[in-house]
This record gives sequence, structure tokens and C-alpha cells, in this order.
Amino acid sequence: MPRKILVIGAGKSTSYLLDYFLDKAASEGLHITIADLRPDHLPLSVRTHPHTSLLPLDIFDDEARKKAVKEADIVVSMLPARLHITIAEDCIAFQKNLVTASYVSKEMKALDPAVRERGLIFMNEIGLDPGIDHMSAMQVIDGIRAQGGKMLLFESFTGGLVAPESDNNLWNYKFTWNPRNVVLAGQGGAAKFIQEGTYKYIPYHKLFRRTEFMDIEGYGTFEAYANRDSLDYREVYGLQEALTLYRGTIRRVGFSKAWNMFVQLGMTDDSYVVENSEGMSYREFTNLFLPYSPTDSVELKLRHYLKIDQDDSTWSKLQEINLFDPHKKIKLKRATPAQMLQQILEDSWTLAEEDKDMIVMYHKFGFVLDGKKRQIDANMVVLGENRTHTAMAKTVGLPVAMATLLILNGQIRKTGVQIPIQKEVYTPILKELQSYGVVFKEFEVPYLGYYPDSVAG
Amino acid sequence: MPRKILVIGAGKSTSYLLDYFLDKAASEGLHITIADLRPDHLPLSVRTHPHTSLLPLDIFDDEARKKAVKEADIVVSMLPARLHITIAEDCIAFQKNLVTASYVSKEMKALDPAVRERGLIFMNEIGLDPGIDHMSAMQVIDGIRAQGGKMLLFESFTGGLVAPESDNNLWNYKFTWNPRNVVLAGQGGAAKFIQEGTYKYIPYHKLFRRTEFMDIEGYGTFEAYANRDSLDYREVYGLQEALTLYRGTIRRVGFSKAWNMFVQLGMTDDSYVVENSEGMSYREFTNLFLPYSPTDSVELKLRHYLKIDQDDSTWSKLQEINLFDPHKKIKLKRATPAQMLQQILEDSWTLAEEDKDMIVMYHKFGFVLDGKKRQIDANMVVLGENRTHTAMAKTVGLPVAMATLLILNGQIRKTGVQIPIQKEVYTPILKELQSYGVVFKEFEVPYLGYYPDSVAG
Repeated sequence: MPRKILVIGAGKSTSYLLDYFLDKAASEGLHITIADLRPDHLPLSVRTHPHTSLLPLDIFDDEARKKAVKEADIVVSMLPARLHITIAEDCIAFQKNLVTASYVSKEMKALDPAVRERGLIFMNEIGLDPGIDHMSAMQVIDGIRAQGGKMLLFESFTGGLVAPESDNNLWNYKFTWNPRNVVLAGQGGAAKFIQEGTYKYIPYHKLFRRTEFMDIEGYGTFEAYANRDSLDYREVYGLQEALTLYRGTIRRVGFSKAWNMFVQLGMTDDSYVVENSEGMSYREFTNLFLPYSPTDSVELKLRHYLKIDQDDSTWSKLQEINLFDPHKKIKLKRATPAQMLQQILEDSWTLAEEDKDMIVMYHKFGFVLDGKKRQIDANMVVLGENRTHTAMAKTVGLPVAMATLLILNGQIRKTGVQIPIQKEVYTPILKELQSYGVVFKEFEVPYLGYYPDSVAG
Repeated sequence: MPRKILVIGAGKSTSYLLDYFLDKAASEGLHITIADLRPDHLPLSVRTHPHTSLLPLDIFDDEARKKAVKEADIVVSMLPARLHITIAEDCIAFQKNLVTASYVSKEMKALDPAVRERGLIFMNEIGLDPGIDHMSAMQVIDGIRAQGGKMLLFESFTGGLVAPESDNNLWNYKFTWNPRNVVLAGQGGAAKFIQEGTYKYIPYHKLFRRTEFMDIEGYGTFEAYANRDSLDYREVYGLQEALTLYRGTIRRVGFSKAWNMFVQLGMTDDSYVVENSEGMSYREFTNLFLPYSPTDSVELKLRHYLKIDQDDSTWSKLQEINLFDPHKKIKLKRATPAQMLQQILEDSWTLAEEDKDMIVMYHKFGFVLDGKKRQIDANMVVLGENRTHTAMAKTVGLPVAMATLLILNGQIRKTGVQIPIQKEVYTPILKELQSYGVVFKEFEVPYLGYYPDSVAG
């Protein structure tokens, strides 16, 4: 009897996930039921594979959904994060294990006692970020502690970018994931972190000017701006004593300074609707945020307002996305500035058919061992193959698939609502990921603390 | 039988309001019941006046509150705005007219049919701003229309400031009203207005750099930043056709540029709690918002971060409020940045016993009459007498008191939930206010539209 895996939601991030299961189906004795509103969108090779069944499923159809969960041996939910909870409740009712790549919501967290009581495993946050970041960080941190080291500093950065060979615009950026999340990134409150024991807060309108740089051999220099949640993992990772905790988002150098122009103008605001948005030209959109003048050009007003010198290279970035174009029109009714900006950027930043994406992750671990301060940096670069087999789909989907099989095979045993910070989880998965080209390089570097270059003498 | 006026809430803004009623009590045959949680805080002259009774009242005591409303002929609510609705419902139940100085809330608006049905008058927004602004604007606008003019432009500005003789700090500002509202001013969404037919939006972090100037004879130059709500009165004032609508808050020149430093740093943020706020020095508070450095001073980091030149006069404004003081401590537990900033500012900006405040209002009316574009500017300056008899209390309290008497005497007749935009309301009140020194000066000036100086040739 094959073990039955139910995958709910077969969107674009599931290519590698499904391929992994299908590759192992014969040797591991698996049958994969793929439940989706429209499973006919899947590639022919998946649809006709002898170890798959397709299940057209509206997840709001309680009866059909419960039936599918009941028949499975384990459930993988690749649905949008807010929809996991319904599946999770079914999994409790029918005593099934569950795997998701999403953050543990409050509702999910609340299920922990019920999950434990039934001896079940609900593994969450086992994609890329969250996911590979947890696993790769905990592996190094546990290693440092095993030697008797004490953590002083942890910084972690991730970015979804475009691969060098497809990197052909001035922003060195294209949308490789949900564009709306990119436009709204950093909003909703100040970024909070701790550096050398001092709490620091960055308001949204300064976020993109407080970047720091990092180099990755063979890939050049990147920059990162702070995430809102740098302290969220302090207790999870056992880093209560660490003096520096910082999480950030990676971009190519210069992106943040240019993006800051949108922030300063107010173009990323999603809190109000612009009057008469539909049919407005990109130029008129830009002018909404500039002082009125009966004579001066939108260009000069913007240059003056944001103090952009004549020879500042950010200027050509604005021209490249047609921000001053009087003919291109916004097609959205009752749109917010953020929605209008998203349309403008999608015009320029959508991946072409043959474009490849790139995932970059960078960790810094500062610690004291035998009375000496030391530092390990670790980084990972993964390149996509094409628009379907993206680096994003690979790094999100493979850990989910691997965890599913490990649970099925009894190699992950810890019960409850959990995230992949246990050795029994991260050791086999990080090892197996290497054979798929998901490899971390580690370097011992001098411990310099924060902003080393600013230290006098 | 005297007419019975019930005044609920006798806070610091009610000095002139009560004096007005007491002065008229004998001639108009009034009895004033002053209901407050602690009416013993009132001045002796009010407490012992033959035409008053004091009623200690917890407004959440339904029985006592209803009894008080039932016994009154008219009710004046000087409570915080959110508490009016309870009083309003009592007034409907017992068929009483009501007067408040607050904005009409959604809940209040919803009572309109019930109020009309009973032939009642609920007069709101009849203080200073809202209040005197409505009345003075509508008087000029109605006058222009009566001559056959068509409105093109309406701009309106109000500010609560410190009187010139008490103006002795570098900010030319002290708190004359609720300090919390000053710290949070402009937050909660982009400012929206229309200039020469073009919609304009200013995000919060640019609000204090988009000021405009105005001169008032004898008082010098002022500046104003945009309010969020410039379009709210478009329909109320019948200005659907006007090309320019702008409302703003008046400050002394230079205030906004300096205030913008707090905004840029993130010190006005009220959305999160700072770790370990209690006992933090003012200097440490400032450092929360600056990049970490093991060696550089808070002063230099701030100068660099905000690009403040050595000779920039905003710098001494920061020093004056002790922003770099390592000894002065925040006394608040679990405080937001905004609450901490408020404490720091209250240290410096609280009115001294003999300090006098000042209210400034400035309107611009652009219109076309007989084919010619014309403009009328109108302004008002009111000075306070002392810390109790403030210009704020006068300009808020007197219109409320006058409207109450006009309703009692049947001179205001229009029923429903309303604001003072009708001739029957504004004509007698603006006239009577003049005898109290609340006087508008009007000037015919050349119509220049907006930003006249930027028009070439």
C-alpha cells in the first residue's frame, strides 16, 4: 500500500515540490493526490504520472475537503497562509500530520496542545524564509554551542532577486514573487532591532536609507534594509543573551536608495484611494505627490523636491520605469497609490519567459569561544532555471517535500505545532538540499561587531 | 421660571462659557446647572453664583445623568468628543436641544432623522475650529454669492499659539491645548487637497516641509502645514466647483522645519512601545533612532543623519528642549516614542502661570465676479488673558454659549443635527463675538491663485 500524500494548492511555487515527490514515488512507495481548484493547469508530466491523482477541490467545500484529508496519510498545505487553519482543524479531526511553509499564526499556535495530545506533527515555516533561514542558522548556532561558544551576534538576510544573466535593468531587480508584498515591504510599523546591546528603531520613511552592505564571492556586493521583526526569533533561537540581532532583506546596491524616492513621494501608501485613478497617466500619477505649479515641469519639481542632483544616477532609474510618461495610463479603478505604483513597476519588472531568478541568503554569527571573540559568515546563492522552475520555487518547495517524507518515514518524531529548529529536522534536510545545489558556504572572519569601519583608531 | 441650562463637563475650556451664562443669567432669566465629576474645582465666583447649581455627576451613572438631562431645558456637552453620543441619546429620549463644540461623529450624524422628527436642534462644531472657521468662512462665501460671484479658491488656516509677549523660546511655541494632539498632528494618512483643479497628496513624512507663509499686520509672518481633511467641507460649503481647497494649521515660521526632525527620526510614532522606556535619559531616547556607533556622539550622528549643517539654527532648537541631556529621565512605563517626546516637550513648552496664548485664523477666498478674478483675505487674532482665561477657551466657549442662548430664545430654528453654516446662526454670533474682541479683518487683495511667485514672466 503506497503512503498517500495530499498536496492542497498547486500554485506556481509547487513545481519542485511535486517533482520531488514524483521522483521518489516509486522507490518510496508514495501516492500523491494534488488538490486544487483547477488541477488541469498542472504540467502534463505531473497529470499523467502513474503515482498521482488530481482532485479538483474548492477548499470551502467542507465535505469534499474533509473527505480528502481523511483519506490521506499526510497533508501538505501550499495554500495562502490564512487558509491553513481550516486544513489544520481537519488534520486534528482525522489525526493527520501537516506540513506548511508559512509563519505559525496565532490560530495555528493555539492548536499545539491538541496536536501534541494526538501525537501529531504540524511542521510550519519550512520553506525558504521562513525555513532554510531557520535551519541553516540553527545548525551553525548549535555547532558553536556544542563547542562551548556563547552567541554575541546574529544577523540574517534574505533576498529574492534576478539572476546575473537576466539582470538587465537599472534597478537590478525584477518581481520574482508577489509584487504587492514588494511594494508594501517595510510598512506597518518601525523596524526594531538590537545592536551591541542598544535597541534601535527605524521609521518606514528612513528604512531604505539605513542599509548595510555585504559581498558574496562571484556575485559582487549586495545591500540589505532591516526587517520589522528582528527580535521575533530571539527566544526561538535561544539568543536572549546576544547583543546584536538584525534581520534584513537583500537587494542589489542602489536599489534601496532609489526605492526611497517612492517612499518619500508617498507612492507606496496603500491607505487611501486616489480620486479618478483610472485613465490617469503615469506622469499625472507622479504629479499627485508634487507641489502645484502653473509653469514648472513634473521633472524639475521632482528633482527639486527630492534634491536629486543633475548627475545623480537614481534619475535614470525613474525614467526607465516611465514615471514621467504622459501616454501610459493607469488601468485601475479606485486604486491606492501603492496599487498604481505596482502597475507601473509590473510594466517594467515582470520576468520574461527565459528570465532566471536568484535567491541570496547571508548569515553572520558572532560568538565568544575560549575567551576570544570570533565570527562565522555563511551564505547561499541559488539560481533559477526558468520562469516555472524558479530558485524561489526550489528553495520553498524542496524543504517542504523533504520534511513531508521524513515525517512519513518516522525520522522526524517531535510532536506539536513546530518550526524546523531541531537537529532531527535540519540535519537531514540541509544535507539533502546540497544535492539539489542549495549549498551554504561558511567562512571564519574576524569578529568586528557592528559598523567596524566607524571605530576610530 | 428661569430657563434651565445643563452644562456637562466643566474642564479648562469652559471659563468663558460659564462667565457668559452667568453674566446673562439675571437679564435672560437663566439657571445654569454645572455637572462635572468634580465641580468643586470651579472658581468660587462660579460656585457661589445665585443662578448656578453644582451637580457632581459621573456620566456613566445612567440614572443620575438621565435625571439631569430630563430636568434641563437645553444641554451643553463640553465632554470629550467620544462621550457626546450618550448625552445625545438622552436628549432624544427627553426631547432636549443639545450644543457641542465637537465634530459631528458618524453616530451623531445617524441621529439626524430622529432629531428632526422631534423638532429638536443638535448644534455641533460651534467652537473655534470647527466653529468660528465655519461661520466666518460662510459669511464671506454667502456674501460673494449674493453679489453673483462664483467661488474659485478657499483656503483656511487656524493655529493655537503663544502670545507675542509670552513668546520666549526658540520654537515660538508652547502647548496651549492638548499636547498629545500636537505630537500626533498630521498622522493617520496622507494630507489631501486640491490646487487649481489638481489633486495633491502629502505623506506624513513630507507634511512639515510643504508649508506656506502668510503675514498678519502687527503680528508678522506665520507658516501653515496642510490638514488631512481639506476636502471634507467641499459639499458642506457648496464648493464643488472651486479649483483650490486647502486647510492648514498655523505655526510661527521655522516651527515646522524643526518639528520635521522629530518626524524624520521617528519620535512621533505612537504605534509601538519602546523597550525599557522608564528611566531612559533624554539622550538615550534620541539615540534609539540613530545608527549604532561605538565611538561617535549622539550629537554628530544626529547632525549627519538629518544633514544639519553646523550653522543651522534648528540645532539650537533641539538643544533648548534638552534632547541630548544624559541626566533628565523619561518617567513613563511602557511608553511609545510619541508619549516620550511629549514628556520631553512638556518640560519646555508648558505655559507658565502668567503666559498668554494666541489664536490665529486666516482665510483666503478667490472668486470670479463680473468676469474678473478677485480675492478676499480675512484674518483674526485673539489674545488670551492668562492661563485660565485663554484665547482658546474664549473662542471655543463663547460661540457655544451664544448658540445655546439663541436656541433657547428661538432665534435659531433649523432643526436636525447641524453645524453653524446657516445665516441665522453665524450672523448674530459673529456680530456678538466682535464685542468680545473676536474680530475678523477683511482685505481685498489681487487674485493670484496658488504659488503666485513661481509663475514665470
